[in-house]
Amino acid sequence: MLFKEIAVRSDAKEMFIDITPQVRTFIQENKIKDGKLTIFIPHTTAAVTINENTDPNVPSDIIFALNKLVPPHQEFRHLEGNSAAHTKTALIGCCQNILVRSGKLLLGTWQGIFFCEFDGPRNRKVILSLQE
Amino acid sequence: MLFKEIAVRSDAKEMFIDITPQVRTFIQENKIKDGKLTIFIPHTTAAVTINENTDPNVPSDIIFALNKLVPPHQEFRHLEGNSAAHTKTALIGCCQNILVRSGKLLLGTWQGIFFCEFDGPRNRKVILSLQE
Amino acid sequence: MLFKEIAVRSDAKEMFIDITPQVRTFIQENKIKDGKLTIFIPHTTAAVTINENTDPNVPSDIIFALNKLVPPHQEFRHLEGNSAAHTKTALIGCCQNILVRSGKLLLGTWQGIFFCEFDGPRNRKVILSLQE
Repeated sequence: MLFKEIAVRSDAKEMFIDITPQVRTFIQENKIKDGKLTIFIPHTTAAVTINENTDPNVPSDIIFALNKLVPPHQEFRHLEGNSAAHTKTALIGCCQNILVRSGKLLLGTWQGIFFCEFDGPRNRKVILSLQE
Repeated sequence: MLFKEIAVRSDAKEMFIDITPQVRTFIQENKIKDGKLTIFIPHTTAAVTINENTDPNVPSDIIFALNKLVPPHQEFRHLEGNSAAHTKTALIGCCQNILVRSGKLLLGTWQGIFFCEFDGPRNRKVILSLQE
Repeated sequence: MLFKEIAVRSDAKEMFIDITPQVRTFIQENKIKDGKLTIFIPHTTAAVTINENTDPNVPSDIIFALNKLVPPHQEFRHLEGNSAAHTKTALIGCCQNILVRSGKLLLGTWQGIFFCEFDGPRNRKVILSLQE
């Protein structure tokens, strides 16, 4: 089982960062042929998703929709004031699995992997692992 | 590691298609005893979920609730006009894992596996893989 | 591949139950060094998520936000009356993966694993499995 931790820096409160290139590098560095890649975010106000990475309006529209879905409710009691970010993290999830075959990520034509910041700006970590 | 790609045809804008039978066939064809099955959707406006497949009102109620959650906001900027479908995909997710034990899918009594179309009708693919 | 089923008892309609201690016990009992843990909920109105388990206001704020997101719509047709719980389950998901390295769960500082009850009180099951 292979492990790698990568660093991500967000520079806005909410933003999606395309980490597909770093994931591809991990596959290539380790000369992985077939296996299952797991991407895990060890944070409680950041997540990971797979979605269109061609038009940058797609991630910004998703962020817009998530902000409409989970506004900063006055009733929230967590004193740090970031319960909306915790809720978005629960909705999107902190883990994704992607298959690797013949040395390539088995992503669809339009799919990219996004680190999802919901409470930035911050320095964050992403854990990659692979089971062959 | 075993791979199989199955074809799914949606014939409505939004619909859930029960793919549990095709997944069971994959397990049986390969005489799999124990392992972990991964279901991956290589699209950005379709997802996969596990939920009740006895009463067809359950998937249609979930679709109804998702349409209330993510309406076609006027503020969306993605020109294809399907940002609500991209958002629903991010909320439901494009990957599910299910355990296989003694040749059987370890699903609960009421659970079935649904391909979730959010921008149909379309011809779609579902990727199945299994690690023993 | 290791399997274990644990029992969970919810005593409210909606509640998050921190199952991190039971998951740690599973790792220790089996003297697991490195691997990938899968947590699977075999129910259609309960889910599993990973989020902050320090301030109990975080899970209660997430439950509050989910109830705002998915109210008991009058238009729901499923006769059991729990379509909101089915929808929340679809949003949060019934499966999580966590890495194990050097005998420890690779969780972030603030992360804990929560069983999410959306239609309690009930006796529930959680399936743990590990691939080394």
